[in-house]
Amino acid sequence: MRAAIVYKDSKLTEKVSKFLRSLEVESKIFEKPSFELEDFDFVVSIGGDGTILRILQYLRREVPIFGINVGRVGILTHSSPEDFEEKLRRAVLDFEIEKFQRISCETEEGELIALNEIAVFSREVAKIMDAEIYVDGEPIESLRCDGVIVATPIGSTSYSLSAGGPIVDPHSEVIILNAVAPFKLNWRPMIFKSDRKILIKAKGLAIADGQKRVDVEEVEIKRSKYMAVFFKKNRIREVFKKFKEII
Amino acid sequence: MRAAIVYKDSKLTEKVSKFLRSLEVESKIFEKPSFELEDFDFVVSIGGDGTILRILQYLRREVPIFGINVGRVGILTHSSPEDFEEKLRRAVLDFEIEKFQRISCETEEGELIALNEIAVFSREVAKIMDAEIYVDGEPIESLRCDGVIVATPIGSTSYSLSAGGPIVDPHSEVIILNAVAPFKLNWRPMIFKSDRKILIKAKGLAIADGQKRVDVEEVEIKRSKYMAVFFKKNRIREVFKKFKEII
Amino acid sequence: MRAAIVYKDSKLTEKVSKFLRSLEVESKIFEKPSFELEDFDFVVSIGGDGTILRILQYLRREVPIFGINVGRVGILTHSSPEDFEEKLRRAVLDFEIEKFQRISCETEEGELIALNEIAVFSREVAKIMDAEIYVDGEPIESLRCDGVIVATPIGSTSYSLSAGGPIVDPHSEVIILNAVAPFKLNWRPMIFKSDRKILIKAKGLAIADGQKRVDVEEVEIKRSKYMAVFFKKNRIREVFKKFKEII
Amino acid sequence: MRAAIVYKDSKLTEKVSKFLRSLEVESKIFEKPSFELEDFDFVVSIGGDGTILRILQYLRREVPIFGINVGRVGILTHSSPEDFEEKLRRAVLDFEIEKFQRISCETEEGELIALNEIAVFSREVAKIMDAEIYVDGEPIESLRCDGVIVATPIGSTSYSLSAGGPIVDPHSEVIILNAVAPFKLNWRPMIFKSDRKILIKAKGLAIADGQKRVDVEEVEIKRSKYMAVFFKKNRIREVFKKFKEII
Repeated sequence: MRAAIVYKDSKLTEKVSKFLRSLEVESKIFEKPSFELEDFDFVVSIGGDGTILRILQYLRREVPIFGINVGRVGILTHSSPEDFEEKLRRAVLDFEIEKFQRISCETEEGELIALNEIAVFSREVAKIMDAEIYVDGEPIESLRCDGVIVATPIGSTSYSLSAGGPIVDPHSEVIILNAVAPFKLNWRPMIFKSDRKILIKAKGLAIADGQKRVDVEEVEIKRSKYMAVFFKKNRIREVFKKFKEII
Repeated sequence: MRAAIVYKDSKLTEKVSKFLRSLEVESKIFEKPSFELEDFDFVVSIGGDGTILRILQYLRREVPIFGINVGRVGILTHSSPEDFEEKLRRAVLDFEIEKFQRISCETEEGELIALNEIAVFSREVAKIMDAEIYVDGEPIESLRCDGVIVATPIGSTSYSLSAGGPIVDPHSEVIILNAVAPFKLNWRPMIFKSDRKILIKAKGLAIADGQKRVDVEEVEIKRSKYMAVFFKKNRIREVFKKFKEII
Repeated sequence: MRAAIVYKDSKLTEKVSKFLRSLEVESKIFEKPSFELEDFDFVVSIGGDGTILRILQYLRREVPIFGINVGRVGILTHSSPEDFEEKLRRAVLDFEIEKFQRISCETEEGELIALNEIAVFSREVAKIMDAEIYVDGEPIESLRCDGVIVATPIGSTSYSLSAGGPIVDPHSEVIILNAVAPFKLNWRPMIFKSDRKILIKAKGLAIADGQKRVDVEEVEIKRSKYMAVFFKKNRIREVFKKFKEII
Repeated sequence: MRAAIVYKDSKLTEKVSKFLRSLEVESKIFEKPSFELEDFDFVVSIGGDGTILRILQYLRREVPIFGINVGRVGILTHSSPEDFEEKLRRAVLDFEIEKFQRISCETEEGELIALNEIAVFSREVAKIMDAEIYVDGEPIESLRCDGVIVATPIGSTSYSLSAGGPIVDPHSEVIILNAVAPFKLNWRPMIFKSDRKILIKAKGLAIADGQKRVDVEEVEIKRSKYMAVFFKKNRIREVFKKFKEII
């Protein structure tokens, strides 16, 4: 097997590479993710959730990711620098994986894809934006806000959470619609089944996982056919219990 | 075909009965719902959402309901007293139905079943209650509150909404966990996929759809095998748009 | 000087009494608060916030309270059982006090007075109640809810907080209006200057600090002329920082 | 008397000017506000709340404002284009005014002053910012968010409301601390008495009433000595009742 090691922080890379060799896995080290990652059997990310989100920008093919958390928040990661050996060994030997829904939308600069969320924001900081929202062609909301967020279940503990959204089971098949600073008293976060299409008409910036930013006039956000693949872990505990200790 | 007419308000019953006869449907009028309702081909409810919730307490078998709204809130109903004829005719002729997930739990006084929510509340008004919450056996939250609510998607616009919960697509396969007056700063509403089992350990009252109240020490709430059946309508518009105009 | 010692938990009473004697303060021990407390120079409460709230039900005269926290939450208390000696010595020697606004309302069973909040609740658990709210005679809100809360600044970290209310500077001159489980999307907590009169028309129970419950049809809640008096402490830190670590 | 007329929309200016003349008030018309406004006895604003906020950027001296609302939201305005004559006549004849607290902070580009709020935001859209918050020198919160808002009572129905803040009596003497998209579960809006000083350490943009933007590393926001002055109206009804119908 061949693994790609992508690091934000270089300290652990050699140690991880050597450890993988002891498991008979060859590895190649990447300072930055690239489309070459798709050629490997799995990816080890040494960084925080941000590093994993960056890696996923380059993965359409279903290559599983193992995350060693050296960042602040580690909802997507599997281990700390201290206990990665035991957990990585089990991951590689069992090779149990799980897949998570991503979302995408077309823009003039190509497809945006996101694991956590696609946000459509006012182009200027702290400036109100008009947004019209349609679900499966039905107009359901018209509001003024800083931004609109469409998030996946796994993204429910990221930006959508900051905007007052619920914590959502990463294994549920839904899509979250939320808004940042909605100037509307009756606004509530909304949960749709994951095959709905959410159209947002707003002159703003579409931002995928905080990684890519594209000027748009409207975007239709829907479930992507490209899943994100991770080595398995106990996500119920991570998301609903441990998460609250971190944040 | 035979229909049961259950009314809260008697004014319309004769008119509805006569109209059904014009569609070649015989009907029997009930002042109160009973288990006899299961013997009919469908039920017409003349009342508000409360009347429908009461009817459903007596339905395990999948008998579709058509609601004529003469109550305050009519999220579950299909028509007003003014336009019921056209809508009821189409319902009976097309007989297009849709099914919605219910939840249930065992208690010493038998099974509780609910379309909207099962709430576990402190036995005394405005008195704090200790609650331990487990999901699929995993302890995920321990809190002091007035009450805990487990709601279905269709129940998201009922009691759970009052407790700050999100509005949820009635066709999504999730279950909502919420709390009333949680004395805990980091509490957030949670959304689980609908096959999770939610165990609430709390000495309190379990209340199903506001209709039945049972003393409990703990309850395990899960998806019921008995669906609620309604004649079809455009629920996306009703739930996400029209609802906001009513409330 | 003479002090009253009121305890919930008897373990510390002798130790506190002996310590007060070393400061030349005579003390009398009370298992339960009574109107006799008004005859002392100050009161030492051995318990949690609940014990202090019970004591205050018997104090109109401005007798300062020193709280030793042996309860769960100790927002109103001054010390732990471990460090009470140093803090109580300084309190008695400096005798620096601070006063906090209370609120009250007239009922058929006499005046209700509260340090934290007066709540008006549905008489039955988890049952919706109709409430009409007037401020200085002006109708400002009509809603269905489990209950309405009128809270003082110092009460902002108690029941009102559970209902989603803001954290309010205990030294600010305002009154908080909040609702538990409001079935109204556009509800928001409201802050009024403290000399406003808040009239709540609702058939329910008026509950003062969780201590006294009276059946009412309407109540007018306003600033009480009887302040609550405490020995001084750094409340900015307690309320805005330490509180978040406790809850 | 001499009045300045500032308009966003020119249609009404002549009509207002003529009407003022009938009240023996000379007027001068301004397409844009300037410091010259301080030389007049009062100002008539023809526009929305934004126009009034722009005017106030040029007023230190206490010149009362009368607002004719031709904008979307008119919380600060006194009349509509249809009924301005009656209301403006009464305003000019009675000359009853009321004063509202403003807030300010020093920056490298001079003092920022605001009627509604001073917001400190991340310099880039939808990008998380680290903020340390001190109140009267006491560190009370450390958080990651899109932005921090310090608002006046009258500003409680503006940006702070979008961020989930309470509705605050415009006549109360408090200051509101709020955050936009706080990535912290235990965040709550906070209310301080108005003479507290709120220090925000964050590398961002300080924005006063959406009108002026200055790069800062930290700002200390406090009550300004310059009040905003308006002709009087029934603000309890406007803010707590009518506002909910508009938004």
